[in-house]
Amino acid sequence: MADETEQHETIDKHPELVVRSRQPYNGGPPPARQRESFLTPNDLFFVRNHAPVPRVDRGDYRLRVGGLVESELSLSLADLAERFRRVDGVATLQCAGQRRQEMAAVAPIPGELPWDADAISTARWGGWRLADVLAAAGVAAAIEKGAAHAGFTGLDLVERGDDRFRFGGSIPLAKALSPEVLLADTMNGEPLPPTHGGPLRVVVPGYIGARSVKWVSEIELRETSSDNHFQARSYRLYPNGMTAATADPDAGFELGELSVNSLIAEPAPGTRVTAGPVTVRGFAFAGGGRAVVRVDLSTDGGARWTVARLLAPPAEVPPGAEGWAWRFFEAELDVPAGEVEIVARAWDAAGNTQPEKAREVWNYKGYMSNAWSRVCIHSADSGEG
Amino acid sequence: MADETEQHETIDKHPELVVRSRQPYNGGPPPARQRESFLTPNDLFFVRNHAPVPRVDRGDYRLRVGGLVESELSLSLADLAERFRRVDGVATLQCAGQRRQEMAAVAPIPGELPWDADAISTARWGGWRLADVLAAAGVAAAIEKGAAHAGFTGLDLVERGDDRFRFGGSIPLAKALSPEVLLADTMNGEPLPPTHGGPLRVVVPGYIGARSVKWVSEIELRETSSDNHFQARSYRLYPNGMTAATADPDAGFELGELSVNSLIAEPAPGTRVTAGPVTVRGFAFAGGGRAVVRVDLSTDGGARWTVARLLAPPAEVPPGAEGWAWRFFEAELDVPAGEVEIVARAWDAAGNTQPEKAREVWNYKGYMSNAWSRVCIHSADSGEG
Repeated sequence: MADETEQHETIDKHPELVVRSRQPYNGGPPPARQRESFLTPNDLFFVRNHAPVPRVDRGDYRLRVGGLVESELSLSLADLAERFRRVDGVATLQCAGQRRQEMAAVAPIPGELPWDADAISTARWGGWRLADVLAAAGVAAAIEKGAAHAGFTGLDLVERGDDRFRFGGSIPLAKALSPEVLLADTMNGEPLPPTHGGPLRVVVPGYIGARSVKWVSEIELRETSSDNHFQARSYRLYPNGMTAATADPDAGFELGELSVNSLIAEPAPGTRVTAGPVTVRGFAFAGGGRAVVRVDLSTDGGARWTVARLLAPPAEVPPGAEGWAWRFFEAELDVPAGEVEIVARAWDAAGNTQPEKAREVWNYKGYMSNAWSRVCIHSADSGEG
Repeated sequence: MADETEQHETIDKHPELVVRSRQPYNGGPPPARQRESFLTPNDLFFVRNHAPVPRVDRGDYRLRVGGLVESELSLSLADLAERFRRVDGVATLQCAGQRRQEMAAVAPIPGELPWDADAISTARWGGWRLADVLAAAGVAAAIEKGAAHAGFTGLDLVERGDDRFRFGGSIPLAKALSPEVLLADTMNGEPLPPTHGGPLRVVVPGYIGARSVKWVSEIELRETSSDNHFQARSYRLYPNGMTAATADPDAGFELGELSVNSLIAEPAPGTRVTAGPVTVRGFAFAGGGRAVVRVDLSTDGGARWTVARLLAPPAEVPPGAEGWAWRFFEAELDVPAGEVEIVARAWDAAGNTQPEKAREVWNYKGYMSNAWSRVCIHSADSGEG
C-alpha cells in the first residue's frame, strides 16, 4: 500500500522552520515561535523523519494487529471509524535528540542531526485509543500468553548501508493500554498531514518521539521489546565513555519516558536590554505524565533562584492531563548590568530536576540532553545609578 | 480504639540501628547492614514515626472508608479477611528525609531528623489491594462526584506546639487504584509489628514513606489532596532560597513519587585498602515504579565512569515489578594509590539521574537529597611499583 520507490516529500512547512536535513526532511521551529501558542500550528510542528515520506493510498491502507493477540485484525480507516469511539487529547512530542547541539559542544557527536531546541511541539491529536483496538484483538489472552510489549512498524523505508528496513519501535504493554495513547488521524483538527504520519500514526504521550511511529501499518503484541534497529540499537542511552566504535547495544538502555527539560524562549540569545526588570518566557516538559511543578530562574549561575509563574494550560487540557503537555512559564528578573547569563531549570512532580551541565549526561548519540537552559544577554546600565 | 494518652513504644529493633530520636522512636540500619539482604529483616527495617506508637486493640479496630464514596464502610480485620482476596508484594520504602545530613552540611536544617543513609529498607508486604476495598465502597460513583485523591489518617497523635492531631496524607486516586498499593497486615511473613503500623498500614510503593500511613483508621476519597499538616505544609519541596521563616506552603510542591537515588554501602568511609581492584557494593532506587537501569561509578570525580553490574532481584520479585524495589549493584574498581573518593550515580528508566552536589537540590526541610553518593577511602601503594 506504500510506494517504496518514489520519494514523495509533501513538505508544506513554515518558512521559519530551522531545517536540519532535506533528505529526509527534518526541522523544527525556533524557540520564540514555539512559545507563541500552546498548540503548535501544524506548519510549525517539528518534523523528525528517518526516511522519505511514504505515499499511502487511504483506500488501500490497512492497520494489521497481530502477534500474541487472540484474533488478528486488519483494519481499514473506515473499520476504525465504524468500530471504535473517537477520542482526542493534547500531547507534547519531543525528540530524544532535542538540544543535542549542547552535547556536541562538549565532544563531537557525528552522524546525528544537530538539533538545537527545535525538536519539541504540542498538538491536539484525534483518533482512537490504542487500548480499544487492542481489546478488540483480545489483549487479555495475549497477556496470558506472555505479551508484555506492543511493537509498531511504519511504512517508511529506512536505508542504512546496504540494509533497507521499515522504521519501528515498541512500548511496554501497560503503557499501550493507558488511555492517553492514541492511534491518531487528525492533528489540531485537520487530517494528519503525510509529513506527520498521515493517514495514521501512534501518539505515545510522555515518551521519546521515536515511539510515536508514523504511517503505522503493524502492531504486534510481543514478549520482548521490538528488535527493530531503532529500538534494539538506536534510541538507547549508552554510558558516557562509550563511542560508536565501542558501543555494545546491551550496555545502552532503551529510551522510553522523557526526562524533565526546560527552555528559555525569550529573551533571545544576544538580546540587548537595559539593566532592571526583564521578562523571561519559556516552556518546560517532563515525561511519563509527570507534571512540571516548578521552574527556577537564576542570573548568578544558580547561587540564588527566582521561581517562575507557571501559566494555566488552555481549556483543551482537562484537569489531570496536564502532565502530557508542556507548561509555559514566565517571570520578571531583575537583571544586573553587564554580560548576564540567565539559566532555567524545571522540576517534575517526582522531584527530578535538570543537571547543571551537558557534560554530566553526555552520551555519544546525544540523547536526553537536558542541562539547565542558558541564554546570554547584554544588559546596559540604565544610567540612573 | 487507640489509647491516646499512654505511650506504648514496643520497640524491638536491632541493636545496630542508628537511633535518630527516642521520643518518638526513629532510626535505621547502617548502609552495610542494608546491603546484606534484599529483604530487610523486620528488626533492621528503618522506623519513621511522628508520634508515640498507638496501642490498638485488634478486636476493636475498624477501618472506615468514606468521603465521596457511594457506600461508607467500617471494616474490622475479620471483615477485610473475609471480603477481600489476599495479595502480597515486595516494595522498598524510603523516607523523604533520607540523606538529609548531606544537605545539612551545605547549610543548617534545624528541627528535622539528621538522617544519613539509614532511612530506606525493603520488605514483602501482605494484605489486601486498596483498589479492591475502594471498589467495594463504590469508587466509580466517587469519581463521578469529582474524587481525585485518597486521603489517609492514622491513629498516631502528633503534637506540634499546642496542637494535637492525627498523622495523615494523601495520594492521587489513580495511584490508590494501582495494584501495587496495599493495606498491609504482614511484613516479611510476620504480623505487622506495632512500630511499623500494625495492625494495618497503607503501603504506597514508589512514593515517599510518609504516604504509607501507619495504623490507618480512615480513608477518605476527596476532590483535593489532604489538608493534614503533613500533606499541606510538611513533606513539600520548597524553593532553594526559602527558609522556615519565609516559607509559603503554596510555594512548595507536594512530594509524592521519589527521585532516583543510590548509595555506596561498601567499602565503608575511611576503609584502608591496597591500590588495585576494590569491590564496591551498593543499592539504588527510583520512585514511581521506574526501574533502575544503570549505576555508574567513578574514582576521578566523574571524568570517567565504570558501569556497575545490576544484580537480579530475588524470586519474590515477579517480572515487571522490579521498579517497586531497590536494585543491588556491585563492581570491581581499579583504585589508584592515595586518598580516593568513590562516587556513584544511578539512572532510572526515564533517563533521570542524580545531581552532582547536594547544594544543587538543597531545600530548608532537607527532602529528596539525592546527590551522587560519595565514599572516601585510603588506598596504599601495593609496593610493586
